[in-house]
Amino acid sequence: MRFGVNHTPSVGWFHSWLDFSPSDTARDLEAIASLGADHVRIFPLWPIVQPNRSLIRQQALDDVATVVDIAGSFGLDVNVDALQGHLSSFDFVPSWLDSWHRRNMFTDPDVVASTAAYVRALAAAVADKPNLLGITIGNEVNQFAHAPHPAPHDITAEQGHAWAAAMVSAARDGLDSGLEARPAPAPSTAPGTGSRPRPLVTVAQYDAAWYDDAQPFGPEHASDHGDATVTHSWVFNGSAALHGALGPGSVRHGEYLLQLAAAWNRDPARPNWLQEVGAPTNVIAPADAASFTEQTIRHVLDAQHVLGVTWWCSHDVSRSLADFPELEYDLGLFTNDGRVKPAGEAFAAMARAGATAGGAGAGAGDRTPPPTALVLDDVMPDGADRHGVRADCAPGGRFAAAWLDLATTAPDGRGPQVVLRSRLADTDLLAARGITRCVDVPADLDTTTLTVAHPATMS
Amino acid sequence: MRFGVNHTPSVGWFHSWLDFSPSDTARDLEAIASLGADHVRIFPLWPIVQPNRSLIRQQALDDVATVVDIAGSFGLDVNVDALQGHLSSFDFVPSWLDSWHRRNMFTDPDVVASTAAYVRALAAAVADKPNLLGITIGNEVNQFAHAPHPAPHDITAEQGHAWAAAMVSAARDGLDSGLEARPAPAPSTAPGTGSRPRPLVTVAQYDAAWYDDAQPFGPEHASDHGDATVTHSWVFNGSAALHGALGPGSVRHGEYLLQLAAAWNRDPARPNWLQEVGAPTNVIAPADAASFTEQTIRHVLDAQHVLGVTWWCSHDVSRSLADFPELEYDLGLFTNDGRVKPAGEAFAAMARAGATAGGAGAGAGDRTPPPTALVLDDVMPDGADRHGVRADCAPGGRFAAAWLDLATTAPDGRGPQVVLRSRLADTDLLAARGITRCVDVPADLDTTTLTVAHPATMS
Repeated sequence: MRFGVNHTPSVGWFHSWLDFSPSDTARDLEAIASLGADHVRIFPLWPIVQPNRSLIRQQALDDVATVVDIAGSFGLDVNVDALQGHLSSFDFVPSWLDSWHRRNMFTDPDVVASTAAYVRALAAAVADKPNLLGITIGNEVNQFAHAPHPAPHDITAEQGHAWAAAMVSAARDGLDSGLEARPAPAPSTAPGTGSRPRPLVTVAQYDAAWYDDAQPFGPEHASDHGDATVTHSWVFNGSAALHGALGPGSVRHGEYLLQLAAAWNRDPARPNWLQEVGAPTNVIAPADAASFTEQTIRHVLDAQHVLGVTWWCSHDVSRSLADFPELEYDLGLFTNDGRVKPAGEAFAAMARAGATAGGAGAGAGDRTPPPTALVLDDVMPDGADRHGVRADCAPGGRFAAAWLDLATTAPDGRGPQVVLRSRLADTDLLAARGITRCVDVPADLDTTTLTVAHPATMS
Repeated sequence: MRFGVNHTPSVGWFHSWLDFSPSDTARDLEAIASLGADHVRIFPLWPIVQPNRSLIRQQALDDVATVVDIAGSFGLDVNVDALQGHLSSFDFVPSWLDSWHRRNMFTDPDVVASTAAYVRALAAAVADKPNLLGITIGNEVNQFAHAPHPAPHDITAEQGHAWAAAMVSAARDGLDSGLEARPAPAPSTAPGTGSRPRPLVTVAQYDAAWYDDAQPFGPEHASDHGDATVTHSWVFNGSAALHGALGPGSVRHGEYLLQLAAAWNRDPARPNWLQEVGAPTNVIAPADAASFTEQTIRHVLDAQHVLGVTWWCSHDVSRSLADFPELEYDLGLFTNDGRVKPAGEAFAAMARAGATAGGAGAGAGDRTPPPTALVLDDVMPDGADRHGVRADCAPGGRFAAAWLDLATTAPDGRGPQVVLRSRLADTDLLAARGITRCVDVPADLDTTTLTVAHPATMS
């Protein structure tokens, strides 16, 4: 079980790539390491690295590689996200893909080939770092694929699969070529950087993938591509409004999303990664942030095959920067000027306890899976895909309510796994997942409905 | 009469601001100076300088100031454009003004205030440079104000006036504060940088301002704001298609646009600046570029009160960069690798002859105005503004045809001035402009019409 933090640079936010400062970076990463984190996730800005479709700036790649090295000096592994893309309400789209040059981001052959070239180059630039945790294709790129994005690049699910496959392939090619091209690193004795497993390649999506039937990127894009299934949990999606900031539907939302997403994994041993979760002040009072953090992580520890949890985020956005949603100024585990906040203390306590607990160390799958699974009706009686299944899973939906009922009444306090109706007959799969009892959503379930504010502008 | 060149960096195009290299810049500027040019126009990219609405990067301002100094070392004055904005088919819009953060660029109070802050800071950063020719608000920003821009920030003409006034005021404030804040420069003995006149503040528009009745920025935005009336002449606007690459309607288009724009000047002594003109290969064969250049400049010299001509552009775009309109790869006076092209030789010959001709030197107004003026029907018989007047002025329009008839039949070869019907009674103005004969567009004029390809994606 890994504990990490999404690095939001304290000076200049991600615009700091324009004025890259190793010392500013080192100060931030030293602080993050002091919390007991073992990794960070970092975010180059796409238009800065690839300002022209055929120009990938070596200096930008070098800066990313330098950040990885600095992190390593503090014992931190690093996950590098490629396509930003979208961060904290701001879109960063290269000029060659916008306005007069607008083409579909996911399907235009020239765009896809050049985007893959960037992913490949970025992966290659950090491939030989002993502390490279992995490459994520980009932060919640599925936001661009459908409404409510204000200018979506609409696609089909099939086109989403082709794109994700191309990007994952590019990342793996980059990792391979980067390792081939460079001398093997000397064996490292730095903490946490011993005999490294192969870096992970992952695809990150915002939760419309699981909750919005109209979003072309869905659960199978999360489960079928890359090396782990990634979830991002943001309770401003209606969870906190429905259940209260510290209600079980809020502090267990990360756990729920991990279980929900894992249901689509074809490989029962596939790791699941809660790559983003935070305590947004638009729905969680600052005074509740520490408790939310502690309870959220505690519940995540109850899930099986959890690769890790990576908190959003390290540092509050500076009030000197304009136009962020209000909550972004208070999402940090540290204040902008570097003081640890109560949520940071809570994270640190969990990270330190988690890092020393159990026997399997950093590997996923060190927790016996919950034996009960709630059945998700993903198919119609005739076997066709059921439209509406994702709405059922969203906060306030029938399935979400049933899962929460089971979770809060479980004797051991652990939320149930989720199994797809379409896979119920796969007894090998169920056995491998440790599922011994399957439960249907009660026909007489009393659900509460609510209007869910769309999270897309938020993070 | 000034001779200048728009600097298109040979290495990395304008993306080179991300990897600013004084030596690359010096090599380009030395080459430009070798043509006999006395000034360059340079183009910071807006999102690089102001990546957050409240973050104006000091390093980016310093880089611009360094370019001005390097230019000075080669005897070149510099005009700095602020809001790019738009360059060679690419739009560069900060993330705080696009997508989820989209607001009207010209009217949103926060956006206008922050845009003004950037213009002010940029002007202040170069205010004390003895070789500062001026500040232009931005390159053809009026492109963003209406269709055919793919995502226009539509406004009224009045809103355009308010915006232009705010930006010009910001530039002047910046120049004033920059001069106050810094020690007075030592008297310079570098060529062309003697006792410098106050830097010019200008507003640059693409030619829809004169040719498209629907464009909110019109002739009066050019003539009523700043210190000179700026025109950009691109014969892919239909001129070359109608008249041929070397036809009089093409090689006199720059002269025509200077005369047309000057008609709106309220101050008869106001200088007029042909700030962009080039030989685009989509309508001018490369073999004709030198002749086009020579003839264009020769005709411009026939106009009165011409501040200067600034050729687009210095260097061909590298073929290693993708997605430019084909013509952009061949617009330079130099090849991308620095060899002077025939058009560059033609420019150099004109610049050297022009720089030594006449007695008034670099000042505008050193040519006796043509005594004849063609009357432009800008008002209806009842005095109301006449819609359609700009279409009449466009290539192929009645007014344009009539001007060209007069120009090509004039005994001295000089194209006529233009006078607005609404100002015909202003005898003082006519006298000050040296107009002794006013000619109406013939009622029986035989005009040819053509379909004009819109130039907006081109430069």
